[in-house]
Amino acid sequence: MPILPSKSRLAHIVFEHDDKASKNFDLAILILILGSLIVVILDSEPSIYRDYHRELLILEWVFTGLFTVEYGLRIWLSKRKWGYIFSFYGLVDLLAIVPTFLSLILAGTQFLVVIRALRLLRVVRILKLGRYMKEAEVLKSALKASKLKIQLFLGTVVTIVLIAGTLMFIVEGPESGYTSIGMSMYWAIVTLTTVGFGDITPLTPLGKFLASVIMLLGYAIIAVPTGIVTSELAIANTKSKKKQGKTCKNCESKGLDLDAAFCKYCGKEI
Amino acid sequence: MPILPSKSRLAHIVFEHDDKASKNFDLAILILILGSLIVVILDSEPSIYRDYHRELLILEWVFTGLFTVEYGLRIWLSKRKWGYIFSFYGLVDLLAIVPTFLSLILAGTQFLVVIRALRLLRVVRILKLGRYMKEAEVLKSALKASKLKIQLFLGTVVTIVLIAGTLMFIVEGPESGYTSIGMSMYWAIVTLTTVGFGDITPLTPLGKFLASVIMLLGYAIIAVPTGIVTSELAIANTKSKKKQGKTCKNCESKGLDLDAAFCKYCGKEI
Amino acid sequence: MPILPSKSRLAHIVFEHDDKASKNFDLAILILILGSLIVVILDSEPSIYRDYHRELLILEWVFTGLFTVEYGLRIWLSKRKWGYIFSFYGLVDLLAIVPTFLSLILAGTQFLVVIRALRLLRVVRILKLGRYMKEAEVLKSALKASKLKIQLFLGTVVTIVLIAGTLMFIVEGPESGYTSIGMSMYWAIVTLTTVGFGDITPLTPLGKFLASVIMLLGYAIIAVPTGIVTSELAIANTKSKKKQGKTCKNCESKGLDLDAAFCKYCGKEI
Amino acid sequence: MPILPSKSRLAHIVFEHDDKASKNFDLAILILILGSLIVVILDSEPSIYRDYHRELLILEWVFTGLFTVEYGLRIWLSKRKWGYIFSFYGLVDLLAIVPTFLSLILAGTQFLVVIRALRLLRVVRILKLGRYMKEAEVLKSALKASKLKIQLFLGTVVTIVLIAGTLMFIVEGPESGYTSIGMSMYWAIVTLTTVGFGDITPLTPLGKFLASVIMLLGYAIIAVPTGIVTSELAIANTKSKKKQGKTCKNCESKGLDLDAAFCKYCGKEI
Repeated sequence: MPILPSKSRLAHIVFEHDDKASKNFDLAILILILGSLIVVILDSEPSIYRDYHRELLILEWVFTGLFTVEYGLRIWLSKRKWGYIFSFYGLVDLLAIVPTFLSLILAGTQFLVVIRALRLLRVVRILKLGRYMKEAEVLKSALKASKLKIQLFLGTVVTIVLIAGTLMFIVEGPESGYTSIGMSMYWAIVTLTTVGFGDITPLTPLGKFLASVIMLLGYAIIAVPTGIVTSELAIANTKSKKKQGKTCKNCESKGLDLDAAFCKYCGKEI
Repeated sequence: MPILPSKSRLAHIVFEHDDKASKNFDLAILILILGSLIVVILDSEPSIYRDYHRELLILEWVFTGLFTVEYGLRIWLSKRKWGYIFSFYGLVDLLAIVPTFLSLILAGTQFLVVIRALRLLRVVRILKLGRYMKEAEVLKSALKASKLKIQLFLGTVVTIVLIAGTLMFIVEGPESGYTSIGMSMYWAIVTLTTVGFGDITPLTPLGKFLASVIMLLGYAIIAVPTGIVTSELAIANTKSKKKQGKTCKNCESKGLDLDAAFCKYCGKEI
Repeated sequence: MPILPSKSRLAHIVFEHDDKASKNFDLAILILILGSLIVVILDSEPSIYRDYHRELLILEWVFTGLFTVEYGLRIWLSKRKWGYIFSFYGLVDLLAIVPTFLSLILAGTQFLVVIRALRLLRVVRILKLGRYMKEAEVLKSALKASKLKIQLFLGTVVTIVLIAGTLMFIVEGPESGYTSIGMSMYWAIVTLTTVGFGDITPLTPLGKFLASVIMLLGYAIIAVPTGIVTSELAIANTKSKKKQGKTCKNCESKGLDLDAAFCKYCGKEI
Repeated sequence: MPILPSKSRLAHIVFEHDDKASKNFDLAILILILGSLIVVILDSEPSIYRDYHRELLILEWVFTGLFTVEYGLRIWLSKRKWGYIFSFYGLVDLLAIVPTFLSLILAGTQFLVVIRALRLLRVVRILKLGRYMKEAEVLKSALKASKLKIQLFLGTVVTIVLIAGTLMFIVEGPESGYTSIGMSMYWAIVTLTTVGFGDITPLTPLGKFLASVIMLLGYAIIAVPTGIVTSELAIANTKSKKKQGKTCKNCESKGLDLDAAFCKYCGKEI
């Protein structure tokens, strides 16, 4: 009979990632998540459902059981139990097991377990792949800096969508499939984003002309979010590179500009 | 009976945004605009129209009535009445109430009240959200600087659309849906902007080849407006940051970092 | 009877753009080109063709007659006649009148007169709109600098299209509409450029998976031409701004870097 | 009877590219590859297959024969035979002849010879077109620097695709064509990449709303890979230009302009 690890040892395995046992635990969780995602995707395929639903259902309950045990373990081992439960990862861990239990009452909810994909975030974070972390940091800081600009931009897009949608609704009308302003706004989004499903298309010459203007507009404004992210990314890149800047020998300030002749903090010549 | 505010107090509430009463007035207008937009969108939905048209029509007239009162108030309270009436916001305020009255004579015009969405611009401006304003300034200056380049670009695109449209009209002809040069130009815009509805598509091998060339061309030139906006945005960003920089009183170097205590060029304390 | 201008005066009017008469001549040509383009577009519209073809045909011949007279004039007035005839603009001028005459023999060729749109280039050049010229210069130099990179990129795209097209042809086959490798390559271009007409789409699971990979690939590589143009545009912008650089008082060299302390040509302190 | 070249002379012709004979050999291979690609593409066209399959089949075997001889030659002439066989180009050379032989056993495999397109890479490399190589270097270094960021980005996109696909599967269901999570994920990729085939489209209002959110999201994140490549390309461009810069022997400033005669920082002659 194997000797059970002590509670503190178990907590180390679950929460830390610095020795063999804890790394294996992380890896096992990673494989379980990927496995359970594959089970859900396969189970939704009609031909596979017909032949293997029973087997997949069993597997699904095995995965859910293991995740439930893991969730219980995490609560039990946490020092600040409520802190964990209401943390982002705590909620994701809970949401990853709820849908299966819910499917006993409500049909169709079992597919919601794909929320488990979010648990991959934790694993990625855990792996602390140095290289990725640095790159992710640059991306994150660029997106954060772009946030306000992108909100403004989305606001403008929504206003354009509202006006373009209404105009198309008036010009084309229900006969062409523009059955309501909501429907027309859906069409305007499909068009402005250059997705262009083609499920609804203008049929009248005036509608086609208006659609052409909307498309050219979309073509022109698609440039804006790209421009925003790019210029912020360039800045973030530069900042990340600045960390390799000059160092003052006097006050030991780091990250001084490469063209600086004097330290901007203490005024000594570099 | 509540005491009516004086005319000057009323003007303050309507035009200024610095105390509780005037801020509440702005907020009320914001809610009224959003509410009336939702009413128009809902009323265009056939199933909702059938069951609730009467109620929505009443609401619509209530909103229009309130906006009419507000419009009257603004004229009455303005010192330069004609100045307000012919200003951009004055015209938008008028256009926001005209369609409802027009719908008494002409059917279908009631949907044009979505022009009210433009009134949101004023509210946004009013809220004077500092952070947003600064970002909007950068975006605006980048777009302004790109204006000439984007006009040139659109001119080129229109010429390509004209020639590509005519070629497709000659190659494919009416049997494939290219019933006229106008129709073919619509198709060329749909294709060049990568929207690709698929309502008209080439059927002959030569047409498909020509379409492939047009698509690759579109793929290559989609890069141009993005490049224009991005490089202008980078410049605008840099300028906006330089403006906030410190200036050295000794050597007059500008654009020094905000956290600098000493000039990085001459070493003097700032 | 008006006094006919002398030959040298006529040559001035036709070739120069610096006094009232020559500017009016340019303007007249601009209006004639736009007018004739509108006539061609309208004539291709079936409903307009039915009712007004006779009138439009007469107009078309009037335009062609005027352009023929202008072409004759230009040859007659040129000092180096063959030089003009074989120049780019000389050929465009010829191509702008040939299709109408050709339509007497071959049906359908009359639409080729849209080549007249290219004559607009000359007019634009003539107007010498200072602001536009400078911007066009920046755009042109950026595109020229990107040429090699974009050629390389298009080569890569064509190779991907060939391989992706063949794979889809093997996987999906004629039943799904992938009737030949050529057809599949057309589909691959439609997909990679994110146009996505939807006239041919994968039907088998494997085909859909392969299509997904191609789309994600397209999504990733759409970034490349944009990146190329943007970075070249940034460089071109910078260069254009450098023209406003420092000037050496000693050797009068212009466009020196703004951070230069010494002239890089003569070595004197600036 | 022509005198056969010696083995060492033959090796020179096949592996080197510096005299007339070896350059002609490279050119012949280039023409053979392009010719055989055209044969495969034509042979897949049903109408051409019907009338000319026999002739094309003969040509295909001639090409395959020549490539087999060339492959044999390369092995025979290589000093490190296994090194060549398992090198990237050795494998491509083999894969370029295998499908034709395989088609004797398995139908349909003959089309796989398009893998020959990859052989063009070698020819391009051989031509050592100086200008292209330098540009390719910049592109390659930019893409290499972006690799981690693009991997991260694709990871995020796949997670979004999984969650968006499942939500659409639950909301729309099989009646709208979302027959499984896999199918919905295919739709999500089609939508996020703005391809938008339109073979599957949301039919319910909630589905349309969700699709709109996904499209706007796609519109916002399409900016990210572009931004990544652009900023890396800008850095690579700068580096490539700095490498060509002069260095001042006096003050050791690097990256001086190529046309500089004096250092712009210290004023000494270079």
